[in-house]
Amino acid sequence: MTAAAGSRGAGRERLVVIGGDAAGMSAASQARRLRGPDELEIVAFERGHFTSYSACGIPYWVGGHVQERDRLIARTPEQHRARAIDLRMRTEVTEIDVDRQRVRARDVDSGAESWTSYDRLVIATGARPVRPEMPGVDAPGVHGVQTLDDGQALLDTLARTSGRRAVVVGGGYIGVEMAEALINHDHEVTVVDRADEPMSTLDPDMGRLVRTAMEGLGITMAGGTAVTKVLTGDDGRVRAVATEHAEYPADVVVLGIGVRPETSLARAAGLPLGAHGGLLTDRAMRVRGYENIWAGGDCVEVLDLVSGQERHIALGTHANKHGQVIGTNVGGGYATFPGVVGTAVSKVCDLEIARTGLREKDARRVGLRFETVTVESTSRAGYYPGASPMTVKMLAERRTGRLLGVQIVGREGAAKRVDIAAVALTAGMTVEQMTALDLGYAPPFSPVWDPVLVAARKATAKVRASMS
Amino acid sequence: MTAAAGSRGAGRERLVVIGGDAAGMSAASQARRLRGPDELEIVAFERGHFTSYSACGIPYWVGGHVQERDRLIARTPEQHRARAIDLRMRTEVTEIDVDRQRVRARDVDSGAESWTSYDRLVIATGARPVRPEMPGVDAPGVHGVQTLDDGQALLDTLARTSGRRAVVVGGGYIGVEMAEALINHDHEVTVVDRADEPMSTLDPDMGRLVRTAMEGLGITMAGGTAVTKVLTGDDGRVRAVATEHAEYPADVVVLGIGVRPETSLARAAGLPLGAHGGLLTDRAMRVRGYENIWAGGDCVEVLDLVSGQERHIALGTHANKHGQVIGTNVGGGYATFPGVVGTAVSKVCDLEIARTGLREKDARRVGLRFETVTVESTSRAGYYPGASPMTVKMLAERRTGRLLGVQIVGREGAAKRVDIAAVALTAGMTVEQMTALDLGYAPPFSPVWDPVLVAARKATAKVRASMS
Repeated sequence: MTAAAGSRGAGRERLVVIGGDAAGMSAASQARRLRGPDELEIVAFERGHFTSYSACGIPYWVGGHVQERDRLIARTPEQHRARAIDLRMRTEVTEIDVDRQRVRARDVDSGAESWTSYDRLVIATGARPVRPEMPGVDAPGVHGVQTLDDGQALLDTLARTSGRRAVVVGGGYIGVEMAEALINHDHEVTVVDRADEPMSTLDPDMGRLVRTAMEGLGITMAGGTAVTKVLTGDDGRVRAVATEHAEYPADVVVLGIGVRPETSLARAAGLPLGAHGGLLTDRAMRVRGYENIWAGGDCVEVLDLVSGQERHIALGTHANKHGQVIGTNVGGGYATFPGVVGTAVSKVCDLEIARTGLREKDARRVGLRFETVTVESTSRAGYYPGASPMTVKMLAERRTGRLLGVQIVGREGAAKRVDIAAVALTAGMTVEQMTALDLGYAPPFSPVWDPVLVAARKATAKVRASMS
Repeated sequence: MTAAAGSRGAGRERLVVIGGDAAGMSAASQARRLRGPDELEIVAFERGHFTSYSACGIPYWVGGHVQERDRLIARTPEQHRARAIDLRMRTEVTEIDVDRQRVRARDVDSGAESWTSYDRLVIATGARPVRPEMPGVDAPGVHGVQTLDDGQALLDTLARTSGRRAVVVGGGYIGVEMAEALINHDHEVTVVDRADEPMSTLDPDMGRLVRTAMEGLGITMAGGTAVTKVLTGDDGRVRAVATEHAEYPADVVVLGIGVRPETSLARAAGLPLGAHGGLLTDRAMRVRGYENIWAGGDCVEVLDLVSGQERHIALGTHANKHGQVIGTNVGGGYATFPGVVGTAVSKVCDLEIARTGLREKDARRVGLRFETVTVESTSRAGYYPGASPMTVKMLAERRTGRLLGVQIVGREGAAKRVDIAAVALTAGMTVEQMTALDLGYAPPFSPVWDPVLVAARKATAKVRASMS
């Protein structure tokens, strides 16, 4: 127990949580489950208006699949408070004083500041969207889609621009999901991306399949070109997006370029940050070198179990797991987060996109030599109605045959098939071991050889050939 | 090389394959891929009219999802012959003479018999349906659904009985799939099963969910009762099915009780059979104790990697894998079939049913102590349209926490989720390791905690509690 804890007497400790979204509030809730209010006081600071909401759901709310904003909120401030969590909304932590074990917080509306001491601290400050520095980026009609407030502002704009032209900047998963949302609002959609092919979380050959499918949906794909400025009309609102080569008329612009860890507080406090700007933790999600500070969610780097290196991945599912692990440890239990294999799934209309493990360039970067195969198969037995084509790309290490990564592009039933590879990667399986996997087979669900097994067979043959 | 091979000179060996369906013809095709006709002569015997067809597809053909019988045929006799396989249709092998390395075959139509010697032999005689010994079981209107001929005969009957009453005997996966097919033919359907709950490949508590769902589809479920006889009318056709307690009027009866390994030839030849009547092989699918005889498909027993014991499982996906392994080994390569974990998926209308690993009674039988948990979750984020409820049951070994089995009952997206557990079982993961699995997450595909992870978390807590 720390000195500060002792100073409050009666052995009652105080946990301070910075950030009221998935990681922070999962940690708080789990700690509360394990330790009652008599043992542990929990104070949580959130600078925004909402707690525990699904940022991943925003494209579907904007796109109209989800009717009400509040459906994205897993737990309201009131619900947290009912569980004896002292949640302070619209209160921004402005400093972490590690030496004196306290944080300074500012009431966003009044500007009043005060210090709160802690025995244990959880940093869950999330990520901030990349907002390109360029003329016009702050013009009305240009929207991010990071927060619920962002989503509402975009919906307000879309109510006025239906039937008109939208430009999405960025062809990653936020970009492609927003393209679908904008189609649902009857916009003509253009996606502008710096990379030649969209979904640069895939290899370019798989990204090309996504581009072709998106073009088939009527989306204009402008790849290999960077946005240089946002042009505005006489009314000051956006009227076009300019690249080095062209101008794309736009009544609304959505920025979907990605996010960076929000670690300015941590940096100022001297906490350890990694190459991607995220906090570095141990397996128990403790900030490295600090016995009583934990961090999780979009503000940390995670270990990639396949490459052995740290990465930054902003995903709600990781944030929830981190929170669970942190809360268990803060609550006196024991849990660890071993790392990730880099699984991600998304969709554009009926196109499903999935990846796990390493792309070709990731494997090269960490010095791995590998073989790749790409196979075409179907989601169901070929004779069963609704069988849809599916492309599976697989990377396997040379000589050892260890699975390194899988990418899948297809229709219904494509995305979640990547879980087979995610588990196999976690277990360190070879592609030859995978060929014997006892996967669910019945004609409505799979060909007699599941597409992942077809890829594993072909990869096995290629690995063997590489050894002779 | 054997003496018999030598007697044919020039080093050309002869491979004889008994059985022209999945295992046998996969083995023949793979062997041919690796060794050309100059090196290896391949003779295959098939007593029926068809080769390489999907028996698993028959319910969907009968049910009208698949329009044409021939779509179930992966490869015709002509296609096999074009690959230099000497395929003898309507020719039944009646004896294996292991000492002299030859088989006796009879032309089904002419009755003519002759001996064919082999250097290498593949036994792929499949399975035969259990046909209960009871009065009336051979009456017109009573149908099995094992072969394409069976399927055509049933379709002929159904064309006459539409809008009338059907009884399915057996509530396993064939039974429930046939119930759907009969509904599609506008029959009033009753399923009679000896067990209290259908799908006895699940634990009864999960089977109950299937029963409730099937009753919701308008199917009458008569469980816990054995059929004693088939009653016929004045025209000699079936008119009802009688159990100990009741009579169920029936214009058509489908037998879906299951299958047994077809190993009478192997038994007569003195080859080793297991407790379930299937041939016993080593990992390379060689019949144990015989250097030049392989066996695969529905006529063999397979090692259950979770229980460590042999089982009989008739499934096309295993038969294909066996054939692939046998063909590789016969062709001079090296491959093994390590075993199964017992994965199976099926559906009744929009109800999806899946299982892998051990049921409670399987675990007890092999002396394992375990904890079970059952969780309710959804296929997608709760706020996303089409999110459907899903029940996941998980068994974990006490103390070690090793995953032992998973059963899932739900709607769209339920069945293939079992693959996550199938891979985890193969890798020997604990439920605690599973809680950290990096599975695909996006609102259209999964809640932020995948249902399988929710079950793993709860199972982890229960395993931990059992240790204190």
